[in-house]
Amino acid sequence: MKIKIIVPGKLSKHLKSAVDFYIKRLKRFAKLEIIYTKLGGDLNVMDSKTILNKEAQNILNAIGKADFILLDLHGEKVTSEQFARMIETDRLKGNMTFVIGGPLGVSELLRDQAKRRISLSDLTFTHELALLILLEQIFRGFKIIMNEKYHY
Amino acid sequence: MKIKIIVPGKLSKHLKSAVDFYIKRLKRFAKLEIIYTKLGGDLNVMDSKTILNKEAQNILNAIGKADFILLDLHGEKVTSEQFARMIETDRLKGNMTFVIGGPLGVSELLRDQAKRRISLSDLTFTHELALLILLEQIFRGFKIIMNEKYHY
Repeated sequence: MKIKIIVPGKLSKHLKSAVDFYIKRLKRFAKLEIIYTKLGGDLNVMDSKTILNKEAQNILNAIGKADFILLDLHGEKVTSEQFARMIETDRLKGNMTFVIGGPLGVSELLRDQAKRRISLSDLTFTHELALLILLEQIFRGFKIIMNEKYHY
Repeated sequence: MKIKIIVPGKLSKHLKSAVDFYIKRLKRFAKLEIIYTKLGGDLNVMDSKTILNKEAQNILNAIGKADFILLDLHGEKVTSEQFARMIETDRLKGNMTFVIGGPLGVSELLRDQAKRRISLSDLTFTHELALLILLEQIFRGFKIIMNEKYHY
């Protein structure tokens, strides 16, 4: 199964080893691709709506025609078990695309086009911490699907 | 203000730079102490209840007489804004203690004694990922309290 994750911006150095840890461990389960798209612009010279729309366009270009699951603070909350079942369902289709918002959040354009919107938490996370959490949940999801032990 | 975080087990290598990143940035705001307590035992030779009780005892020894906030999957959900107000309230008291459960979760003993139980998510996280998320939220909390810009 192919899993694509699209996230605006770059990964900070302090999160690299943690993200790499899960990329390596996920190889057993899926062909993972993480695409870092260009940020929409600088808040000092542009308004947030313009930035969000630019970011959304970059993200939609990276998605192509695939349907996608949007990580959204105001989305639906799921347990790790339910998240695992989402992966299990999409495995039959062979691919799955996740989109994470940028530093300013997600645009309405993305909200409208998402197949499903899920919320990791009521808490706001940095977009790169959201990436790490998503990777851990995908890994956990496969462990649940495969009925493998995972006590961490 | 003093902030103490108690978490069973050790920190994995792949999360060290991320945890260190927030420890460093929090120095401006608080005197932070992270205490890693001993795990309760091995599931292959002990049952989970015994392990959890042992872990709880190690945690309670590390807490001393302070009241504490327990991170618990089944606790109350808060937004980052509400979390910041919790810190703001406890700043007057001068100290704050957080407890994170171990790989097997939290014992009833800890649930009973906690001043407050908060849930980061409906998703289950590793205890060390919970530590990282907590550190980021404490940092975000201070940025909110101080009314400082924080777009990440």
